[in-house]
Amino acid sequence: MAFLSEIAMDNPSAISFASGAPAEACFELERWLKVIPRFQHDIAAARNIDAMAAGRMLGQYGRTSGLINDLIAENLLKDYGVECTPDRVIVTNGCQEALLMCLQTLCASEDDVVLARNPTYIGVTGAAALSGIRLYPLESNADESVASSFRRAVLALTLQGKRPRAFYLIPDFDNPTGDVLSVLDRRAVLAVAAEYGVVILEDNPYGMFRFEGSLIPPLAALDSSGTVIFLGTYSKTLCPAVRVGCAALPETLFGAVSGRLALAKKLRERKSFLSVTTSQINQALVGGILLEEAGSLARIVEPARRFYQTNRDVMLQSILAAFDDDRSLVKWNVPSGGFFLSMELPFSFGKDDMMECVATHGVIAMPMSFFALDGSQQNLVRLSFSNVTPEEITSGVERFARYVRDRLNTVAGF
Amino acid sequence: MAFLSEIAMDNPSAISFASGAPAEACFELERWLKVIPRFQHDIAAARNIDAMAAGRMLGQYGRTSGLINDLIAENLLKDYGVECTPDRVIVTNGCQEALLMCLQTLCASEDDVVLARNPTYIGVTGAAALSGIRLYPLESNADESVASSFRRAVLALTLQGKRPRAFYLIPDFDNPTGDVLSVLDRRAVLAVAAEYGVVILEDNPYGMFRFEGSLIPPLAALDSSGTVIFLGTYSKTLCPAVRVGCAALPETLFGAVSGRLALAKKLRERKSFLSVTTSQINQALVGGILLEEAGSLARIVEPARRFYQTNRDVMLQSILAAFDDDRSLVKWNVPSGGFFLSMELPFSFGKDDMMECVATHGVIAMPMSFFALDGSQQNLVRLSFSNVTPEEITSGVERFARYVRDRLNTVAGF
Repeated sequence: MAFLSEIAMDNPSAISFASGAPAEACFELERWLKVIPRFQHDIAAARNIDAMAAGRMLGQYGRTSGLINDLIAENLLKDYGVECTPDRVIVTNGCQEALLMCLQTLCASEDDVVLARNPTYIGVTGAAALSGIRLYPLESNADESVASSFRRAVLALTLQGKRPRAFYLIPDFDNPTGDVLSVLDRRAVLAVAAEYGVVILEDNPYGMFRFEGSLIPPLAALDSSGTVIFLGTYSKTLCPAVRVGCAALPETLFGAVSGRLALAKKLRERKSFLSVTTSQINQALVGGILLEEAGSLARIVEPARRFYQTNRDVMLQSILAAFDDDRSLVKWNVPSGGFFLSMELPFSFGKDDMMECVATHGVIAMPMSFFALDGSQQNLVRLSFSNVTPEEITSGVERFARYVRDRLNTVAGF
Repeated sequence: MAFLSEIAMDNPSAISFASGAPAEACFELERWLKVIPRFQHDIAAARNIDAMAAGRMLGQYGRTSGLINDLIAENLLKDYGVECTPDRVIVTNGCQEALLMCLQTLCASEDDVVLARNPTYIGVTGAAALSGIRLYPLESNADESVASSFRRAVLALTLQGKRPRAFYLIPDFDNPTGDVLSVLDRRAVLAVAAEYGVVILEDNPYGMFRFEGSLIPPLAALDSSGTVIFLGTYSKTLCPAVRVGCAALPETLFGAVSGRLALAKKLRERKSFLSVTTSQINQALVGGILLEEAGSLARIVEPARRFYQTNRDVMLQSILAAFDDDRSLVKWNVPSGGFFLSMELPFSFGKDDMMECVATHGVIAMPMSFFALDGSQQNLVRLSFSNVTPEEITSGVERFARYVRDRLNTVAGF
């Protein structure tokens, strides 16, 4: 995706709906850095050592599985309803490391494969590719439920001699689609996973950014069979530079505590060779904020949540206004949270189209096919509203609508 | 290596020569954290933005290849004599990530293998193992030079249809042996690498901790053929929790700039799926210190350097005193820098012996066979003097000498 930043640099006046980075306006880095010394004093008191000794301890490598596991466990319960004990938390260098170590540990033999929805987050595609792990997209027949296509994929792969070991998904405000999995779908997916012994890797970067409706419990909170590893991150709730995430393991792995203990051991060992340990400075920053906020980031994320909601509203209004003359030209979803909206165009839109669109109309839209595992999604784009201003959204959507019309006219005028 | 911390926890009164962690007494975390806001203001001035915007920028993901590449390039020149341009630096999440991404990128096919000295650092053994990459130890015939056994290994592996792609080594104050590669050996190793197209991965965590003699230029500073990737870290010069390291690429890869550019691109892509980016908070900390110190950490490491030198001296004196009656019982090297001393015992010393030694004599010595790639090094131990006090060293060496004698007496009395 490096070419995306090159495109943005080559076209400084372009408006970009490509970046899924969080809104910088909500970062409070200077204030957050000040909690590190406070965390240092708190941990000194908790361990009955002096503050200087605590500072020295923080400077060291620390435990492979992390320093703030108790605070993260409390946070997962308070903000996501996910029950977890500190010993089941492995603190990671961002969520990407959690994902990588889970994929690599679960898929130890050549026949072990991973499933993902289609389209899916690029980070899982890349992590699987660099690990030599085959990633299979769920086929989505019209009106078929996720659980049904999950079951079909497991059965088909098993017939081919493959072992589906994990199913990766973002059930809340999915990247790239913005969609949410219903509670019924979640329960059905859990049942299939439990039946076939497939671990669910539940990624949840956007769960705190809900605009309407009530919380649907994460799969990990609905899991009674020991099938879900919950992947957490503070990149969106605080900021990406904290580079702190986690993997939270279920109490049992498919009913066996011993299975979970064995998996945790393997994950820790792998982590020790991926990154040695997660920076205790960064853990102190996250831990200090969690202590200040009594375990919930709800108060801190509220301005960002409102910012994203306003942007989502502006984007929806802009789309309605820009396609006012003919609303059947494009279709779009109404994301109830998160950073992303999907739009279907009346023509295919790939990398070359994206380049042409930015050159001629000054707006960057992300082809959904970039996130596809099978060359599908040709007519779809992902429009991110997380790191743009309302003014940019209005103007960017106008530009994109003009591009859509100009392109149809060109085709028509051929 | 998790069992090492368990042993230490189970035997709290034991003295440990096992940990290669740096001396905490020299960390100045509280002071170092204060440079982050200063770095923020400096980067604001450099980019002509306000300090708040700079703070927001620092909170973001940032460039895959890093933010402080210019400061690191300056530092490599000033502290190591390694010339590098900022565009050839990739900032990593500690040196472990640099090592991992180089191994995985250089060894793309099944026949690609890596060479290492024997014994070698556990981090490279683990990184290769988790990447499914075969790591071959150099055989060391008596009096054979490193370059000669390097050449023999390359030729033997090539005959077997393997492609030796990289040779990993720590030429300065090696972990685990404490040895230094002479300048003649360095030049000879470089010649073999250039002749056979093998990339040298030069790891240099201890180079700033020289106790006597003058600097021997790193291989990267002697390299005129484009064979050396220099791996840097701030874990020992500052502290491990900064989790900032780097890979510094040669100007050309075996004479071709295009080869280096292609390699750099692949490394960046791999890094983006290993850790996305290196925390800009941590980079700001390191960058801020480098700015304050005008590019050299010589002043900052001086107390630590003296601390390690004193500890090395105390360890040597303690060994002489403890084996005063019979100095032929054991042999040891005199490390001219770094954290580690090697000792040869008159019997083999493995994991069980280590456990017995701590239980009966209250001292933890690290079997060198833990670092061996081929079951060798049975009679050797690594004694680390980096994270113990002089008093602990004196007492620990006495205990270990008593263990050696008791064990010989037991054997004799059988």
